[in-house]
Amino acid sequence: MKIPQSVRALIESGTPAHLVTLNRDGSPQMTVVWIGLDGDEIITGHLMANQKVKNIRRDGRVAISMQSPEKNAMGLTQYVVLHGDAHIVEGGAPELLQKLAWIYIAQGVKFPTMENPPAGFVTHIQVKRITGVGSWTD
Amino acid sequence: MKIPQSVRALIESGTPAHLVTLNRDGSPQMTVVWIGLDGDEIITGHLMANQKVKNIRRDGRVAISMQSPEKNAMGLTQYVVLHGDAHIVEGGAPELLQKLAWIYIAQGVKFPTMENPPAGFVTHIQVKRITGVGSWTD
Repeated sequence: MKIPQSVRALIESGTPAHLVTLNRDGSPQMTVVWIGLDGDEIITGHLMANQKVKNIRRDGRVAISMQSPEKNAMGLTQYVVLHGDAHIVEGGAPELLQKLAWIYIAQGVKFPTMENPPAGFVTHIQVKRITGVGSWTD
Repeated sequence: MKIPQSVRALIESGTPAHLVTLNRDGSPQMTVVWIGLDGDEIITGHLMANQKVKNIRRDGRVAISMQSPEKNAMGLTQYVVLHGDAHIVEGGAPELLQKLAWIYIAQGVKFPTMENPPAGFVTHIQVKRITGVGSWTD
């Protein structure tokens, strides 16, 4: 589905993304990651074939939540949850992480810090459903 | 397991908790909730038998992630993930939510705002494993 402008703005402001994947036994696996946009797909990079990558290759069902810096009239933290289907593409991780590091850490930083990082993996997520607290619409 | 003092402090500072439960089809369900401590169990309240409550009654496997306000030396957001087993206890939600509202919204606020709220449900989570980025130890 199309990602609303309000959600695109939250992503592009460098908001930490809480990503859930599913372990082999069906239990949830959570990490906080950097995300970016590739059209209407959400993308995130991994230098290694970590647990997230293994999990998504087995079962592409994922969810991502992000806190908004704004609170609603009642004082509750606003947040958005993106439910989607993910797939892994080989390569491209250092380039994506370098781009995201300027948003999530600071402009001008070198990331990954190592020389000759591995090509790694990029996860692409197609968003199927959006929930949360807030007005996550165009 | 025993919850380290560093994690207890993060919880008690009123940090939004990203909670994952499992839907009937095994897909992840995420919301952001208020949490508190009851000894070494994590507790959260629900006025209604919402999707979280239904999911936990079917499958108690949950995970919670919280961002720390601190960043590590590299500039990465620190966070903790608590993996655990949850069960639902009937009643007690308004009292718990009232207590947490003073931490998560502001001292002195009335919450729930309605008169005569339903007794609701309290989720108790036993923590089995702690991961994340940061020093989540005593």
